[in-house]
Amino acid sequence: MSLVVVGSVAFDSIETPNGALENALGGSAVHFSMAASYFGEVRLVGVVGEDFPDSHRQLLSSRGICLDGLEVVEGGSTFRWSGKYFDDMDHRETLSVDLNVFENFKPDLPATYRDTGFLFLGNGAPVTQASVLDQVSASPFTVVDTMDLWIDIARPDLESLLARVDALVLNDEESQQLSGEKNVVLAGRKIRSMGPRYVIIKRGQHGAMISHEGGEVTLPALPLASVVDPTGAGDSFAGGLMGCLMKSGRTDLTGIKVAVAWGTVTASFCCQGFGVEGLKEINAEDLQDRFESYKNMLELDSVEIPQII
Amino acid sequence: MSLVVVGSVAFDSIETPNGALENALGGSAVHFSMAASYFGEVRLVGVVGEDFPDSHRQLLSSRGICLDGLEVVEGGSTFRWSGKYFDDMDHRETLSVDLNVFENFKPDLPATYRDTGFLFLGNGAPVTQASVLDQVSASPFTVVDTMDLWIDIARPDLESLLARVDALVLNDEESQQLSGEKNVVLAGRKIRSMGPRYVIIKRGQHGAMISHEGGEVTLPALPLASVVDPTGAGDSFAGGLMGCLMKSGRTDLTGIKVAVAWGTVTASFCCQGFGVEGLKEINAEDLQDRFESYKNMLELDSVEIPQII
Repeated sequence: MSLVVVGSVAFDSIETPNGALENALGGSAVHFSMAASYFGEVRLVGVVGEDFPDSHRQLLSSRGICLDGLEVVEGGSTFRWSGKYFDDMDHRETLSVDLNVFENFKPDLPATYRDTGFLFLGNGAPVTQASVLDQVSASPFTVVDTMDLWIDIARPDLESLLARVDALVLNDEESQQLSGEKNVVLAGRKIRSMGPRYVIIKRGQHGAMISHEGGEVTLPALPLASVVDPTGAGDSFAGGLMGCLMKSGRTDLTGIKVAVAWGTVTASFCCQGFGVEGLKEINAEDLQDRFESYKNMLELDSVEIPQII
Repeated sequence: MSLVVVGSVAFDSIETPNGALENALGGSAVHFSMAASYFGEVRLVGVVGEDFPDSHRQLLSSRGICLDGLEVVEGGSTFRWSGKYFDDMDHRETLSVDLNVFENFKPDLPATYRDTGFLFLGNGAPVTQASVLDQVSASPFTVVDTMDLWIDIARPDLESLLARVDALVLNDEESQQLSGEKNVVLAGRKIRSMGPRYVIIKRGQHGAMISHEGGEVTLPALPLASVVDPTGAGDSFAGGLMGCLMKSGRTDLTGIKVAVAWGTVTASFCCQGFGVEGLKEINAEDLQDRFESYKNMLELDSVEIPQII
């Protein structure tokens, strides 16, 4: 099974109460790929400028990530983002955005990428995301991410896109904005009625909820004593999720549930380092060990209540 | 195994966006007992006035709850509380409190209650809670509840009490207030250092976290499409939790974990009706069915990641 990701490649500058990072490798396609790379080959589609250094390419290649779809714009500059986290690490503000070459990004899938089993469309304009669906030859299992901006300014495009995809991942606030429902269960159901078989609502330190045809599944996050930098946690979550799908090939509820669990585990590593550091400095065994702990944490013994009254 | 609960018995008046209820049976000992009654005999210690009607006694007795410890103060009035929930159902304001006979409540355990395996000390002044510990002859597994008021005005008493109990249940905000830590994991660890083997932090719709000697366990809440009235959910949670402990007799981490799961299940029924209605109109099979669904929801398949890179 193969996995294609289309998204941003960026230089991130991040301030947190624990320290700061300048011009570090980031972007949705990067965080996603780093997480998914533990499960098999990831094929990346993105765009950078001439300022994108070889060392970053080498890091991605060393994780087996295919960069045939990484376009370099001559004379262009790579997308830059800077942001600052507040003390609670749950909220942040964007300090600056320089879209640069990402502003006119028109994803162009290499011929070898077009027949893929799994496709992730990172956060971007819904029309751009839809243009990728027009290029794939098979019918990949497609997961899409979005954000408040597109719900706000491109809702009709987003709704057209949702009718064509298998799953949407978004956060709690975005789910409320898109559905108009405050209750997370009702929000999931309403968004599912727009098309996706699965709606996966990310709830930060509180875990994630899957809305599916038969109901809802909630899974907790891993309890973390410290969060160094949550940047990229959502994309790492999606990367672990789709990496697991690529490996298992199972897209029924059982498969999606274990994939969300893997997303939870990869996101937890992402949060424990600055930028991509958290996912760079581990190996497959570290991930597998944490997954087993998570699985065990959720295993419950049976206790039958007496039928006395 | 036997289970004793010491707490309030009250008349509650509740306003919610879904409707209102006047002078309904409530109080921590009542909600706790209703939830725990599905697991075996609960022995209640509380106080009411002459205005407490026989119909309420009959309801509790019909659930096998022993009322030998329910004191009636001649000429006195029962504790009354009224509150109003905001639209999100996560927050409420207290409109009025008439402590009445509860103000001078000095719990006096009947002789038959003193040798108990499990003891729950519902929210109250820490010195009053401690006076119960002085009356028990054996060394019961003791769980205590508290609230912001006592952390604020009676911290030394509360800390003395915590050194004598096995577990504390409290909510997210209270855990931050008591520990001075914003991170839930660190909050749990700091409170555990005050004495209790287990600190169980309730997080409303986000589930609960257990802090224990070996680390932390997070369990999600059940996804509910509608919450009718959350009054008593915390005490129902504690009731299901301790009912399970009474039934299983297991107080190791495995036993506590499944007990928290049962607490989660009983609390979910509590939220689905006004006052005690949610837990009154079900039977053991309804509880068992929902527990099995919850257990299945959390079961994960194994997916091994390839050790390729």
